[in-house]
Amino acid sequence: MRLSDEQQAEIEELRADAHPTRRPVVAGLEDLLYSARPVLDHGFVRVVDYMGDDAAVVQAARVSYGKGTRQVREDRGLIRYLLRHRHTTPFEMCEIKLHVKLPIFVARQWIRHRTANVNEYSARYSVLDGEFYVPAPDHLAAQSTANRQGRGDVLEGEEADRVLRILNDDASRAHANYQAMLNTDADGTPIDPAADGLARELARINLPLSTYTQWYWKTDLHNLMHFLSLRADPHAQYEIRVYADEMMEILRAWVPATAEAFEDFTLGAATFSKGALAVVRRRLAGEAVSQETSGLTPREWRELEAVLGGE
Amino acid sequence: MRLSDEQQAEIEELRADAHPTRRPVVAGLEDLLYSARPVLDHGFVRVVDYMGDDAAVVQAARVSYGKGTRQVREDRGLIRYLLRHRHTTPFEMCEIKLHVKLPIFVARQWIRHRTANVNEYSARYSVLDGEFYVPAPDHLAAQSTANRQGRGDVLEGEEADRVLRILNDDASRAHANYQAMLNTDADGTPIDPAADGLARELARINLPLSTYTQWYWKTDLHNLMHFLSLRADPHAQYEIRVYADEMMEILRAWVPATAEAFEDFTLGAATFSKGALAVVRRRLAGEAVSQETSGLTPREWRELEAVLGGE
Amino acid sequence: MRLSDEQQAEIEELRADAHPTRRPVVAGLEDLLYSARPVLDHGFVRVVDYMGDDAAVVQAARVSYGKGTRQVREDRGLIRYLLRHRHTTPFEMCEIKLHVKLPIFVARQWIRHRTANVNEYSARYSVLDGEFYVPAPDHLAAQSTANRQGRGDVLEGEEADRVLRILNDDASRAHANYQAMLNTDADGTPIDPAADGLARELARINLPLSTYTQWYWKTDLHNLMHFLSLRADPHAQYEIRVYADEMMEILRAWVPATAEAFEDFTLGAATFSKGALAVVRRRLAGEAVSQETSGLTPREWRELEAVLGGE
Amino acid sequence: MRLSDEQQAEIEELRADAHPTRRPVVAGLEDLLYSARPVLDHGFVRVVDYMGDDAAVVQAARVSYGKGTRQVREDRGLIRYLLRHRHTTPFEMCEIKLHVKLPIFVARQWIRHRTANVNEYSARYSVLDGEFYVPAPDHLAAQSTANRQGRGDVLEGEEADRVLRILNDDASRAHANYQAMLNTDADGTPIDPAADGLARELARINLPLSTYTQWYWKTDLHNLMHFLSLRADPHAQYEIRVYADEMMEILRAWVPATAEAFEDFTLGAATFSKGALAVVRRRLAGEAVSQETSGLTPREWRELEAVLGGE
Repeated sequence: MRLSDEQQAEIEELRADAHPTRRPVVAGLEDLLYSARPVLDHGFVRVVDYMGDDAAVVQAARVSYGKGTRQVREDRGLIRYLLRHRHTTPFEMCEIKLHVKLPIFVARQWIRHRTANVNEYSARYSVLDGEFYVPAPDHLAAQSTANRQGRGDVLEGEEADRVLRILNDDASRAHANYQAMLNTDADGTPIDPAADGLARELARINLPLSTYTQWYWKTDLHNLMHFLSLRADPHAQYEIRVYADEMMEILRAWVPATAEAFEDFTLGAATFSKGALAVVRRRLAGEAVSQETSGLTPREWRELEAVLGGE
Repeated sequence: MRLSDEQQAEIEELRADAHPTRRPVVAGLEDLLYSARPVLDHGFVRVVDYMGDDAAVVQAARVSYGKGTRQVREDRGLIRYLLRHRHTTPFEMCEIKLHVKLPIFVARQWIRHRTANVNEYSARYSVLDGEFYVPAPDHLAAQSTANRQGRGDVLEGEEADRVLRILNDDASRAHANYQAMLNTDADGTPIDPAADGLARELARINLPLSTYTQWYWKTDLHNLMHFLSLRADPHAQYEIRVYADEMMEILRAWVPATAEAFEDFTLGAATFSKGALAVVRRRLAGEAVSQETSGLTPREWRELEAVLGGE
Repeated sequence: MRLSDEQQAEIEELRADAHPTRRPVVAGLEDLLYSARPVLDHGFVRVVDYMGDDAAVVQAARVSYGKGTRQVREDRGLIRYLLRHRHTTPFEMCEIKLHVKLPIFVARQWIRHRTANVNEYSARYSVLDGEFYVPAPDHLAAQSTANRQGRGDVLEGEEADRVLRILNDDASRAHANYQAMLNTDADGTPIDPAADGLARELARINLPLSTYTQWYWKTDLHNLMHFLSLRADPHAQYEIRVYADEMMEILRAWVPATAEAFEDFTLGAATFSKGALAVVRRRLAGEAVSQETSGLTPREWRELEAVLGGE
Repeated sequence: MRLSDEQQAEIEELRADAHPTRRPVVAGLEDLLYSARPVLDHGFVRVVDYMGDDAAVVQAARVSYGKGTRQVREDRGLIRYLLRHRHTTPFEMCEIKLHVKLPIFVARQWIRHRTANVNEYSARYSVLDGEFYVPAPDHLAAQSTANRQGRGDVLEGEEADRVLRILNDDASRAHANYQAMLNTDADGTPIDPAADGLARELARINLPLSTYTQWYWKTDLHNLMHFLSLRADPHAQYEIRVYADEMMEILRAWVPATAEAFEDFTLGAATFSKGALAVVRRRLAGEAVSQETSGLTPREWRELEAVLGGE
């Protein structure tokens, strides 16, 4: 179970409790506040606080007083203009704070985004629960033969069974031995009253990278979109992409105009190199261009074909 | 006047308007929200948004769900512990956004604090008002003779008069010539219909560093305190220190427990070098220590004497 | 004159002095080391130190020991791949340090690039020379009528003369009054032995934004390219673009393979939104598409036409 | 073995190879360049590049041309002044790049220092060696009973044997199963030609946090000292502190004057709160002060006693 009854009760209590504020309020995000959105087998993402909205982006761009008198339609146009022309600083004026539960190997990729604030559960200070990630059978992918950093077909039959058995057995044994070295059972009671128990900061080194951790993670809207542009991408590892997908939903509830512009001008966009641009211009002018006459390497040519083919 | 009637009306409207939120709300800061706090002759600071409170610092430190059940007294103790032991990351979990009007030479010092988000009024895009900073007579300080980077006594008599005359005349003339080069009067009407008017991005280079600009500035609580530790300090230039002083008031209204700990452990604290520490220990053990026997340089000795003497 | 005889002599001495190092050395950049490259009427850029080269980018990407055995051709391919696919971290492994002399209004744009290290000449501590920027007649542009943030035609005749006269007179007067308020002449001698002289940190506020300052500025290769992508761009103000242009030359001398890839995949590239991409695909498939049937706004349509037209 | 014969040969080759440069050269650091300094059972730190020296700190502080004519003694005084008064920016003008091999649980603490550049070995792309950290018997510490986040006595006898057996067995088994899931033996040959092999990015999740990884890590001198002030501290976990200790040696070889000042004014220094300062002043004035009359909490009192007692 992801959340204990006590935690669930606390969340319900927080959600029931509302106070008046003069700050901008986003009704759609208030609806989501504090609730845990499940990700993977034991993980979640939940919004614990936010600052600003679409109008705050516009306000910063105008460095004006108060909300101004423009129409929503004009605001939307300005947001699209800002994003299209890389005027990124107004998007830094909104902030969001998430509580995330995630496997350590995902946390190791996530933490590479440096422009963010993080407080992680400390396994020097506290004892980790015995929760670890095991891929669902339809995500148990073979190594890609085409791409050293990618996934191929899903494993099947005996090989799949064996992999799942290993992942489950090794993680279970590692956690049981973690408790044995700590000399405490699940309730925190010493197992052997005569033994000392290994320091928590050492015992944890036995745990696998699939172990779940959790953190508070806070970032601004610009850096959130940068994170999403890299992690909601097909090249990102599946296990971080599913977090990014949930965060896209949060983005849409929080700043709908910005989210729409982000999908048009970043997520759904493509960058053409100087050479690729020349090829497109020649083809639009009616010229037949092949890889040989394109000036592009075979790899660049394949990438351009893929983009123009709608992949 | 700092704010136009229209702006003042907008602020009043925003202040009158409250909506329910499930997020943490700080009543003391809500009271201040949107209001302009005057600084210097034409400047101000006003809070336009915030995220989090003292409890959010504690919450991040505990990476717990919701508010937890601890008492305020324990929260205060934990905040003091965190600050004393340089556990800075929980303080990054709160965020504040200010609207500041300030002279350009102050903005140039302020912007050196890089971990912040900024949107400044653009003088490439818009025309600057003719507002500039002139020190009040009791802040018209002479160059310090003891400190190359400090102020001495206040100028008086004819010298003071002459300086004020220069500052006023040169700034007024520069702004009048700015408008002349732009070929627009204060209302934006072309002066000479036949002239083109210099580009705004060029005309502004004639304006003095005393000219007022404004920006939205957003930072987290940890970096706000770092800013204050450097800018609310007696070594900071008076004209930025008065902004820091106003921001200290905002800090107290926002996060009272953190502000108290900050005054005890940072603002009012002193760091003793290895050598200074040895001197203190020897003196506490009853030994008379002079600069010559202290192992400190004359300068380090003077600095230590000043701290122990309560300066 | 930009550099005093003494400074020039020191630079010559530093240039004459070479010592053996085991670190990577870039012959083409060593040639430029310490020399001042003139920019605008009194400014310059000069390289004072660097770390790494094209091979260091590749080395970091491979996290290998030493240089590895790959050919230059493969390194070039890897660098192009990294840049094309936004694998930016290997480019952070090279660092460059510049000494720049620049007008304050340019410094104010430049400093907005936060991921850099800066030490600026302190006008609290020292007295500024009387050097200020005045545009050359062929850069004395009128305000653009099409673009609120751009330049139009060059001013001519009486209007140009008047603008140049204002810029020169106001800056000269401001600097003369700066010295008068400081009560020091150009040699630092007190003018009136009985007067105190205004504090340097106050006197400077009379100086115009055209005044020259200088700083040491250090950044990594990734952030240097980000700077150049924004500041070597036609939308950047001319007076910062000329610095970026000089820095492009430095980039080419330092990391030729990276510079080439940067021109192909960033400077010369264009990003197509989801909607623009759909238009290109339809046109390549032989369909005639107009703004009305494109799904793009008139502004987005014009921007796409400009890119496809080779602007 | 830490380095293969081939790697060792490459390092020797790089060390034998010197070229002339006009840049500042630090003979003492050139001696160390490229050599691996062993840390823990399989780790190392080695310097792969550097920029600047003590004189570069001084140069930035003076924003002067070239080296200037000051004596070393004056430079040392300025460096001490800068560090004592938190003028940190000149220390950002030097840069160092390290190649580090370290256990993943150490890497997870290290990466929290955000102002640095990192390229880590990718276990999505490549296969990890079967090297993992096991504490030496004299570092196999029990959990502290006084400090939830610390270590107590060293484990002994049967409990120690059991812990070492678990750590070795679990890590060995996890790595053997990692290879089994990848379907490759140590040479990269498929074990079962008919099996597909699990994707590398998934197989790695079975490995324990004690597994070694490696990275290139680059930072500036200011941030290096900040890292050391937190990680060469007795409160840091032993396994990261030993890396910090090696880096202190590197610091001394690189910038001796800065390293000396850092030990006096940061590492060996202590900060006294406003309340603690009042106690010291009262005691120096001859007053007997107890915890009850001190105004300090029992905990703050104990911390003050420890500092004054020389702990």
